[in-house]
Amino acid sequence: MDYTRNVPVQRIIDGRRKDDTEVVAREFPLTIMLNSRELNTMLCSPDELENLTVGFLVSEGVLKTRQDIKSVTADERKRTVNVETAEGLKLPLKRQGGRLIASGGGRGVSLYNAEDIKRQPKIESELSISSATILALAAEFQRRSEVFQNTGGVHSAALCQGGQILLFKEDIGRHNAVDKILGQCMMEDISTRDRIIMTSGRVSSEILLKVSRRGIPILISRSAPTDMGVELAEALGMTLVGFARGERMNLYANAWRVTTTEDD
Amino acid sequence: MDYTRNVPVQRIIDGRRKDDTEVVAREFPLTIMLNSRELNTMLCSPDELENLTVGFLVSEGVLKTRQDIKSVTADERKRTVNVETAEGLKLPLKRQGGRLIASGGGRGVSLYNAEDIKRQPKIESELSISSATILALAAEFQRRSEVFQNTGGVHSAALCQGGQILLFKEDIGRHNAVDKILGQCMMEDISTRDRIIMTSGRVSSEILLKVSRRGIPILISRSAPTDMGVELAEALGMTLVGFARGERMNLYANAWRVTTTEDD
Repeated sequence: MDYTRNVPVQRIIDGRRKDDTEVVAREFPLTIMLNSRELNTMLCSPDELENLTVGFLVSEGVLKTRQDIKSVTADERKRTVNVETAEGLKLPLKRQGGRLIASGGGRGVSLYNAEDIKRQPKIESELSISSATILALAAEFQRRSEVFQNTGGVHSAALCQGGQILLFKEDIGRHNAVDKILGQCMMEDISTRDRIIMTSGRVSSEILLKVSRRGIPILISRSAPTDMGVELAEALGMTLVGFARGERMNLYANAWRVTTTEDD
Repeated sequence: MDYTRNVPVQRIIDGRRKDDTEVVAREFPLTIMLNSRELNTMLCSPDELENLTVGFLVSEGVLKTRQDIKSVTADERKRTVNVETAEGLKLPLKRQGGRLIASGGGRGVSLYNAEDIKRQPKIESELSISSATILALAAEFQRRSEVFQNTGGVHSAALCQGGQILLFKEDIGRHNAVDKILGQCMMEDISTRDRIIMTSGRVSSEILLKVSRRGIPILISRSAPTDMGVELAEALGMTLVGFARGERMNLYANAWRVTTTEDD
C-alpha cells in the first residue's frame, strides 16, 4: 500500500490562487491482534504492517525472540495484523475488562518509576564511533528523508553499522518508524547488538526505552532529547547524540563512545 | 513549574569537543483523575496542568460546558490533576476492568467510522480571513515559537481572532498544546466560535476532530495535513490551511473562507 497520496489543493503564492495537487501522508488505523484477540489500535503509515506490529509487540515487551512467533498475518481490508504466538508461550499480558494490555506497556508510561528501570540491564557494549562518521550518517539519513519531510511531515528511523545505513523506515509516527526497524530485525534475525539507531524525531523517554530494550548502545537524533530521555540514557548506559547535523552535534550521555580526531 | 531545564552536554563542533550546558524540554507523566478515579496517564510539558486536563476531557467528549466542572485540583508532587464534576452530571464513560475510558475517546481512533463523523454537526460559520492576515499570523506565531523549537522540539498552538493571537501554548505533545488552549477557553469562558486555531504540528485526524468538536471553523498549520485530516476537514465544513509560511500556503478544504486581493 502506498503511504502517500495526491489530494487537490488551492495554492496561494504571493496572493495569487492556483489549483494544483499535493502529496499528503496517508493515515491508517491499524488494529493489532494477538492470538486473534484485539490488543491495540494505532494510527500509522500503511506500509510494512507486519514489521510494525512485531516491532510494537517487541517494544511493549510481549515478544522477546523470533521463536515466540508462529505466524504474522496482515489483512489490509480489515485493517488488522494478527500475530499467533508459539504454543506454550507465556504472554506478559493482563486482562482489563474485554481488553488485553501488555503488563509492561501502556506506551512506556508504567515504566517511569525507578524500580522498573533498575531492573533493566545496563548496556555494556564497547562500540565506539567517530564524530565524522556520525555526521556522514546524518547527512545520508537526511538525504533519504527529504522527500517526505517536505511533503508529508513523516518521521524516519534507520539502523546503522559503522558508516552504513542497513535499514531505513518512514512513518507518520516517530515511534512507529523505530518499531518497523525493530520488527524487521526480529523477523529476519538481523542483530541489533553493537549497532546504531538514528531518528529524525525528538528523543522522549518512550523512544529511549524502546531502543535500550534491544541492547542498542548508540542513539542519534537530528532533534532534541527531553530531560527524561537524557536521564534514562545516562542510567541505562546508552550514548545519546542530539542535533547531529552539518558540522556539529551534542553528546547528552555516555559521550565516551564518540571519538574525535582530537583523541588520537 | 518550568517546562525546560539545563543539562550538561559535550558539544562537538568541527571535530572539537567543548563542555557546555543545553536547554532541554522537561517530560512529565501526568495522571488525570475524574472524581478521584484514575482516567489516563499522559506525557506532557509541566505547565498549565489544569488547562491541559480540562482540555483533554473536552477533547475526549467527557466535558461539554463550564457548568460540568465543580473543581480542578492539581497536585504536582503526586503528578495528578483531579476534576470533580457537577453533581448529577452523566459522564460518557465506560468501565473496562479497573479502568475508566471515555466512550467516545480512545484518542479519536474509535471515531474513524463514517457513522460517528456524520453525527457531528457540520461547522456553519461564515467567518473569512484574508491570505495576508494568515501569513502575518503565521509569522508572529513562528516568532513566538522559535526559542523552544530550537532548543526543545516543543510544539506550539494558538487561538487567533482576525490578525491577533489571543492565547499561545507550548507542549512536547502536539495534542497537548491544543488541549491547553481548549481547556483555558472552557475554564475562562473564552469563546471558540468564529475563531481560528494555529498549530506548528502535522494535522492528523485526531487534531482535526479535537478542533472541530469546539466548532472552530479555520485550522492553520505550518506543517502538512494527513489524508484523513483533509477528508475530515472537507466532511465537517472546516477550512484547513497547511504550510502557511513565508509568502505561501496550501488550502486543503473549504478554501472559500480564505480571501485574496484577487477576489476584490
